[in-house]
Amino acid sequence: MRRYPTLRWSESRPEVLDQTLLPHDVAYVRCEHLDTMAEAIRTLRVRGAPAIGLAAGLGLALVAEKTEATSIASLRAELDHSAGILAGTRPTAVNLFWALQRMRQLWAREWRDVGGLRHAVLTEALAMIEEDQQACRAMGAHGAALLPDPCRVLTHCNAGYLATADYGTALAVVYVAHEQGKRVSVWADETRPLLQGARLTAWELRDAGIPVTLICDNMAATVMSRGEVDVVITGADRIAANGDAANKIGTMGVAILATYFGIPFYVVAPRSTIDLAAATGNSIPIEERDPREVTHIRGVHIAPSDVTVFNPAFDVTPAGLITAIITEEGVHRPPYVESLRVRLTER
Amino acid sequence: MRRYPTLRWSESRPEVLDQTLLPHDVAYVRCEHLDTMAEAIRTLRVRGAPAIGLAAGLGLALVAEKTEATSIASLRAELDHSAGILAGTRPTAVNLFWALQRMRQLWAREWRDVGGLRHAVLTEALAMIEEDQQACRAMGAHGAALLPDPCRVLTHCNAGYLATADYGTALAVVYVAHEQGKRVSVWADETRPLLQGARLTAWELRDAGIPVTLICDNMAATVMSRGEVDVVITGADRIAANGDAANKIGTMGVAILATYFGIPFYVVAPRSTIDLAAATGNSIPIEERDPREVTHIRGVHIAPSDVTVFNPAFDVTPAGLITAIITEEGVHRPPYVESLRVRLTER
Repeated sequence: MRRYPTLRWSESRPEVLDQTLLPHDVAYVRCEHLDTMAEAIRTLRVRGAPAIGLAAGLGLALVAEKTEATSIASLRAELDHSAGILAGTRPTAVNLFWALQRMRQLWAREWRDVGGLRHAVLTEALAMIEEDQQACRAMGAHGAALLPDPCRVLTHCNAGYLATADYGTALAVVYVAHEQGKRVSVWADETRPLLQGARLTAWELRDAGIPVTLICDNMAATVMSRGEVDVVITGADRIAANGDAANKIGTMGVAILATYFGIPFYVVAPRSTIDLAAATGNSIPIEERDPREVTHIRGVHIAPSDVTVFNPAFDVTPAGLITAIITEEGVHRPPYVESLRVRLTER
Repeated sequence: MRRYPTLRWSESRPEVLDQTLLPHDVAYVRCEHLDTMAEAIRTLRVRGAPAIGLAAGLGLALVAEKTEATSIASLRAELDHSAGILAGTRPTAVNLFWALQRMRQLWAREWRDVGGLRHAVLTEALAMIEEDQQACRAMGAHGAALLPDPCRVLTHCNAGYLATADYGTALAVVYVAHEQGKRVSVWADETRPLLQGARLTAWELRDAGIPVTLICDNMAATVMSRGEVDVVITGADRIAANGDAANKIGTMGVAILATYFGIPFYVVAPRSTIDLAAATGNSIPIEERDPREVTHIRGVHIAPSDVTVFNPAFDVTPAGLITAIITEEGVHRPPYVESLRVRLTER
């Protein structure tokens, strides 16, 4: 169904699809240095919580690939330093820290020689991609079972194949339902300021042959009020133990509207997005980004110069507004403080 | 306080501030022909419900000014034809139809000679501007009395001086409160697709020395959730007899959020915005505009080509979400079907 992988390991280097160029150009950034990958994450060339974690893994694989270290200790130090650089790129999506932590646990083990550890880092990075692909399919299947036929889905931002290594999270549900023969169509919020809905979601759904209608974020209430939305489905960047879910700015507003209009609101995310160390959404750090993202669009100035701007990149949807959280393990229902913990600790 | 009149009658011609060029350029369109005025309304060079009505009045004054009619009957026919052209520009704001109806009543009267009617049309158009100025001040005073000190106002679109002949509607409340020494600051929703909040509201508030912070529409829920909004104030384009209020797309969503967070939601509009012939919001026609408004920003393409777009220009906020409707006559409280009718018929 998809034509362009979000990220790949090619001839000993990571390559990421440069999503800042979509939908106008399809081009890959080939990372010769860790800094290139860090910059790609920071500037949203690669974005989407799962993809950020996978990109970090490939960044560490690049470090292991290129290392001149001759001892385990010096390679570990180099990897630790690199993990620190990657950790500083974006604060909200926990998948980044999950991936780094998993990698740190890997190199903390006993290793016989540098070559073994180098190989293991790459193997682990590729394993995470493989697992993400399986998780996407599982989330898609669990979610698709909840959709009526026909079904009109509203989504915010991009939680599709561009945000993962495979089918996506929220859109995996759409893709699997479509494969099952359900008549699914999508309302895509454009998702200001960076327009991931207009640039990415509309693009990838059209690419996949699924009917999509683009709206401005502030039109969601209108399509809901007209009875033209059956379910809302979004991804998440970090889910607290109580089910509060950080996601792209605007998600909370959509959840409040869905509740007002009696429309189910589903959050779809892999297990690696759940942060049991965060008791509630209050513990989730919210990234604020450059005011120019609001005052300029593709370099064009759209507001008075030097106007004061507030530009939070995420918001936190209270658990009480979320009908269900769908992971690769299944459909978690409230109270999430129990349903999320039980599933996670069962493993 | 304001430096640039929204519209004016200058050397026998109407001139309108071209708001499509703001905030980059300040320029006036001088209307030599009725078609120029009709185009200015249709393309939002002049916009805002009250200003559209006043612009229509000036358009008819131009027709009367330039007429070569030698009989009352032929001048009436010319004015009727012109009113029809103006009526076809934009469907939602009722102030346009209110102004045209008021003008039609004028020329339906007995007139002794062509010169008398020509003069009367201009006088009436200018009287409407004068009345709008008084209405703005009265709305501002009624609304300002409702604001705490300090007060953080969130507004959507532009209901400021650019939307009227004077202080505006929603922003008149802010300007008068500011004059009274209250510490008022404003959150301005950017208001996609045409960015009236970013381009116009942020610009005119800065021009007036009032602190303003620009946000994307989808950030309103976040600033409300942080307890940083004391009241929401918007204008309206048409208010039905039961209080349902059509306004710029996105207003209904903001009203739902305000209700969710327990924040008062005020609609400010002159009496000419109230359409007692519309029993409820269901009777209000909603303009849909060119998809290019969503897919392009200042000529720059921001979405896949030929993507399907839904682009309603207005939505209707149910009366039940509106804390009060403020007109030049005072503060109308629910049930609006009584409070709006009583005030209007008392006159």
